[in-house]
Amino acid sequence: MPELRFDPIRRRWSIIAPERAFRPKDFAIEKEKINEENNCDFCEGNESKTPKEVFSIRKEGTPPNSPGWRVRVVPNKYPALRVEGGLIRKGEGIFDFVSGIGAHEVIIETPHHKKQLQDMDPKEVVDILKAYKERYIDLAKDMRFRYILVFKNYGKEAGASLYHSHSQIIATPIIPIAVSLELEAAKDYYGRKERCIFCDLIEQELSYNRRIVYKSEKFIVWCPFASSFPFETWIFPLIHRHEFIQMDEEEINDLSFVLKDVLERIKILLKNPPYNFVIHTAPIPRKRPGRSHYWETLPYDYHFHIEIIPRITLIAGFEWGSGFYINPVLPEEAARYLREIK
Amino acid sequence: MPELRFDPIRRRWSIIAPERAFRPKDFAIEKEKINEENNCDFCEGNESKTPKEVFSIRKEGTPPNSPGWRVRVVPNKYPALRVEGGLIRKGEGIFDFVSGIGAHEVIIETPHHKKQLQDMDPKEVVDILKAYKERYIDLAKDMRFRYILVFKNYGKEAGASLYHSHSQIIATPIIPIAVSLELEAAKDYYGRKERCIFCDLIEQELSYNRRIVYKSEKFIVWCPFASSFPFETWIFPLIHRHEFIQMDEEEINDLSFVLKDVLERIKILLKNPPYNFVIHTAPIPRKRPGRSHYWETLPYDYHFHIEIIPRITLIAGFEWGSGFYINPVLPEEAARYLREIK
Repeated sequence: MPELRFDPIRRRWSIIAPERAFRPKDFAIEKEKINEENNCDFCEGNESKTPKEVFSIRKEGTPPNSPGWRVRVVPNKYPALRVEGGLIRKGEGIFDFVSGIGAHEVIIETPHHKKQLQDMDPKEVVDILKAYKERYIDLAKDMRFRYILVFKNYGKEAGASLYHSHSQIIATPIIPIAVSLELEAAKDYYGRKERCIFCDLIEQELSYNRRIVYKSEKFIVWCPFASSFPFETWIFPLIHRHEFIQMDEEEINDLSFVLKDVLERIKILLKNPPYNFVIHTAPIPRKRPGRSHYWETLPYDYHFHIEIIPRITLIAGFEWGSGFYINPVLPEEAARYLREIK
Repeated sequence: MPELRFDPIRRRWSIIAPERAFRPKDFAIEKEKINEENNCDFCEGNESKTPKEVFSIRKEGTPPNSPGWRVRVVPNKYPALRVEGGLIRKGEGIFDFVSGIGAHEVIIETPHHKKQLQDMDPKEVVDILKAYKERYIDLAKDMRFRYILVFKNYGKEAGASLYHSHSQIIATPIIPIAVSLELEAAKDYYGRKERCIFCDLIEQELSYNRRIVYKSEKFIVWCPFASSFPFETWIFPLIHRHEFIQMDEEEINDLSFVLKDVLERIKILLKNPPYNFVIHTAPIPRKRPGRSHYWETLPYDYHFHIEIIPRITLIAGFEWGSGFYINPVLPEEAARYLREIK
């Protein structure tokens, strides 16, 4: 059973997830595993090789766990957190544990082995975004979960262990520190100004017009002022939306173009680099046991967005020890290159 | 000129350091560069290939920048922060800048191309620790600096771009977020209990005796309760020392054994993995302009230590988006393996 452990010094949780009897020889550095087309668990026809699907978008009349799907969601075979069991919180001296309850699912983005997200038709991306939304809504019903994170690792250096295009969704029993730091900043700003910090940021970027990659009808894309990584790119809805599941049909259609387009620009400019993207959304709005008020999520505090990080530099001792990131590319230059690539 | 930029949402600084006119073709993923023995800037005899040394431990009578040294410190050829210039802090809308003032030096740990820290005689490690201390003391005199970080990247995946054994020292004009989070936790604990959180942690680990790798006369080594990475290992002085430069001759001698021994255990157990280590020490004690009291560094708040991270897992989208780390190895098991390896 995995467990969450809190570090009283770094004030951060780790997920300790020993999956099997530990043998040190397993811990050589992970080598590239490009699974072959004829031996890929995620390909159409191999549905029986994965855990049973929890959601799919498929041709009418085809039964679950059989061919005919366009997007398919299955539990992760090696989950970081597990759905089964009670949520136990306990302490030991200055240490705190939470049982490793959560969910860990894989969104298989296409039945085709070789098609990557950045090469898809926007219509195919619509299905993926809808799958994110459906799974989010379903998982959010589980009262043990506090936060649901949707993310994608593309390429070995970005942490992908399989080649077939996929993203992941992890539900956690506590709000992740990266999220609570952002929430705190947003709440503090809203408390002082009664304005959303993200909305103000959009206004400011639009008026400076130096870091914007482009603006669609519903979304804006820019390289952030204090980018931690070269060519880091953010996608924000222009309209204030605290949760990504608030997106309507039109917004999802627009985002499918924007997401695909940005990833394609990055692919062309940086020669198909590994990347991560993460959807930053508000925590699930719900009462905390023993408290009388909703925590964190006032709708005007938060503004969902997607962070894309091409992984072309390494995280080394300095970054780890300081929390500072050294970025060798001016965000204004990065935005200009991304603007001009097409 | 590099600059520091503050992210108002993540509340974190980035160092934007464009070193040269930017060309996207430079940003293919960094490939392994094992510099050849006969073409290494750090080897004895090639002193003229580096910037002029700022410190060395060398045979009596040999002049600077010539052979005869055991440890040599030189400015980094491609510094993340620069010594020249004034410290300027300015704002623009909701953004904050600080000019990229600082220092970035390289400690060349040995004249021999092939000898790595983990394979050295402890006597050689003593020289390296002394070089850290001397450079720290000298850099701390510069009133523009707030923090000095000593760290090492070993192996390509840990961010080392050169093979020849070296570590680095970076002085920054602001206190890094990773340090201020720790300081805050320690200060808060001390404020409530008048005890050092780190001293209490040592007591607790000693009494549980489940995660300790070993204890020397002056130091204790354990795998932390909430390890973020498999085989993450911490070294703490048993006596309360808030800054590592407080170490006396005896403590340096003892630490040289301990550091080398731990790194050697990791090398044997995990088959020579890449690793980082970072010295966590208190900020430089000094007055902030316009404030009447010393900031942060009450001697009893902090307790210096060394964090060692073998780099055998990757940092992916989930870690980046959540600040959670998924660690597949129980710290208790990691400690047992490290204990038994010799």
